[in-house]
Amino acid sequence: MKEFKIAVLPGDGIGPEIVKQAVKVMDAVSEKFDIKLKYEYGLIGGAAIDECGVPFPEETKELILSSDAVLLGAVGGPKWDNLPFEIRPERALLGMRKLLNAFANLRPAKLYDELIDASTLKPEVIKGVDIMVIRELTSGIYFGIPKGIFVDGEERVGINTMRYYEHEVERIARVAFEVARKRRKKVTSVDKANVLEATVLWREVVEKVHEDYQDVELNHMYVDNAAMQIIRWPKQFDVIVTTNMFGDILSDACAMLTGSLGMLPSASIGGKIGLYEPIHGSAPDIAGQNIANPIATINSVGMMFTYSFDMPEVEEAIDTAVRRVLAKGYRTRDIYSEGKKLVSTEEMGDLIAEEI
Amino acid sequence: MKEFKIAVLPGDGIGPEIVKQAVKVMDAVSEKFDIKLKYEYGLIGGAAIDECGVPFPEETKELILSSDAVLLGAVGGPKWDNLPFEIRPERALLGMRKLLNAFANLRPAKLYDELIDASTLKPEVIKGVDIMVIRELTSGIYFGIPKGIFVDGEERVGINTMRYYEHEVERIARVAFEVARKRRKKVTSVDKANVLEATVLWREVVEKVHEDYQDVELNHMYVDNAAMQIIRWPKQFDVIVTTNMFGDILSDACAMLTGSLGMLPSASIGGKIGLYEPIHGSAPDIAGQNIANPIATINSVGMMFTYSFDMPEVEEAIDTAVRRVLAKGYRTRDIYSEGKKLVSTEEMGDLIAEEI
Ligand SMILES: CC(C)[C@H](C(=O)O)[C@@H](O)C(=O)O
Ligand SMILES: CC(C)[C@H](C(=O)O)[C@@H](O)C(=O)O
Repeated sequence: MKEFKIAVLPGDGIGPEIVKQAVKVMDAVSEKFDIKLKYEYGLIGGAAIDECGVPFPEETKELILSSDAVLLGAVGGPKWDNLPFEIRPERALLGMRKLLNAFANLRPAKLYDELIDASTLKPEVIKGVDIMVIRELTSGIYFGIPKGIFVDGEERVGINTMRYYEHEVERIARVAFEVARKRRKKVTSVDKANVLEATVLWREVVEKVHEDYQDVELNHMYVDNAAMQIIRWPKQFDVIVTTNMFGDILSDACAMLTGSLGMLPSASIGGKIGLYEPIHGSAPDIAGQNIANPIATINSVGMMFTYSFDMPEVEEAIDTAVRRVLAKGYRTRDIYSEGKKLVSTEEMGDLIAEEI
Repeated sequence: MKEFKIAVLPGDGIGPEIVKQAVKVMDAVSEKFDIKLKYEYGLIGGAAIDECGVPFPEETKELILSSDAVLLGAVGGPKWDNLPFEIRPERALLGMRKLLNAFANLRPAKLYDELIDASTLKPEVIKGVDIMVIRELTSGIYFGIPKGIFVDGEERVGINTMRYYEHEVERIARVAFEVARKRRKKVTSVDKANVLEATVLWREVVEKVHEDYQDVELNHMYVDNAAMQIIRWPKQFDVIVTTNMFGDILSDACAMLTGSLGMLPSASIGGKIGLYEPIHGSAPDIAGQNIANPIATINSVGMMFTYSFDMPEVEEAIDTAVRRVLAKGYRTRDIYSEGKKLVSTEEMGDLIAEEI
């Protein structure tokens, strides 16, 4: 019998309640597929600050390093917004990505036909959209040095450094081409090679890696044009691969196209241990009310089984369960529309677990 | 009688034909408002490369420095795409911005009611959208050093540097608040202050400048969230002020919301001499066919009169003329829809000039 140890980090805001539903679904999966799943819980973000004074405690680091995969709820909230930069909840995210060497962030933006009306785009523009944004996650301007606020003469200057080594571009490009092979075989590499030398190198390396993937179509697009094309005709995209900063921006734009952020998962992979989390935040305004949508977290479990445990059949089973529950008309508040059946966070978790 | 000298740089692709229409409109304005306008033509971009081997010749530099304002068509095209980085047409744009100290790039994204169907967003989401994106234009990661591709050990590394001095943030923030005062009095400053120290300083300085503009509302937004909010509910924005790179991306996203790039002008100001140009590119595929939309360039002339010559009444007159021509049903191909009257570039120029 297969056995996996999963580090479960509920985090802040709605984190605990949505993660609880994801655990229900994991329990159902474990039974159906005859896998043993062991959960170990850890503190992260604001919850960790409150308990230990730091957002990413040593204990949590040890916990995740001894696990097979990490499931994260969400971190942050107004309570910790005024802390100094260095100990804010977000540091935990960045620290975790680095620690796990999770250099490839996969963010699918896929429209659920049942939720097409939730999009602000016209149905004919958005119908069938299925984009996988692959964002470089452990380098670029997020981590480059020098960075900081310095004094230069009479005034201060803020500095960050965008920096990409060839091997960093190469490995993310490989992930993109591999993923594209299992999809519609098209990669759009987004850069700003008409201005930024770092992305001149990016483009060159992506071209080089492409030689090994001649069955996949590759095109290059400047980031400003990409931001337009995502709005103009999103169906033109299959896989988008880009830098850490551009990926942060474009993946959120792609997600918003679908109109239902509460549905969208993410995977951060590349190292031995993968990190899985919903793309939405901790939503402190609705925390503890049993109204949050747990599906993004549940779908993140699906990605975990594909990318960490090489069991895509589990992701499929979860996806089918989610679609069935939607087809039956069940909706949490964020995706509710007239005539549908409004359910709570708990109920949605139960419904999906039952379908599996 | 007022007298202005305007440097006219048609550039590449559709540049010459759209600029020609803008000149017609300037002639009409000159007559109606009793102003003397003197045009001096110069080479830029690919046209300059073909003639002089460089995209931004000394002669053109002298020409613009001796003018009161610069009107630019567009630069670039496939013919020059494979030139080395340093002499590509885009260098001319960056060089010109620096030379003119045009640190504030104003890009209005305003919906024309008549063209609401051209948007890919639903009418109720897009109706009434009127955003002014103010992008910092002469600093940030576009210009920071070190930049380039270097060798580090066994491999190469691409580097760019984001760098903002306090005074650079202060002056762009002032422009934003001043512009907001003449609009709906709301500024959204977009940064990534949860990750980039350079924008921690940005946010702090914007807050400081805000003390002088207590009649204007200020809020801060992370760039990834801004990319979402622009798609989710664009009407929430009045003035957006942001860094060079974020502004490049977000201004194009905002423009695309309207669905009619062919209508949108831009102004690059801050120094003694302002630079005015359409936001769209040189569209080499339709160049010379007399089908391009000249309105973005004509609207750029409008901005020139407001921001360089302090004659907002001229911008108003141009705006009214454009709206009348649209109301009468005239459309160039890019904004054509059934039942409207299709006109050429030349005809559109004539129609608007006549209305003035
Ligand atoms: C919270 C922040 C540090 C983070 C990022 O910018 O990477 C978030 O926006 C994300 O995309 O996961
Ligand atoms: C052509 C390019 C250098 C330029 C920029 O990035 O500034 C363009 O995209 C723009 O926005 O004017």
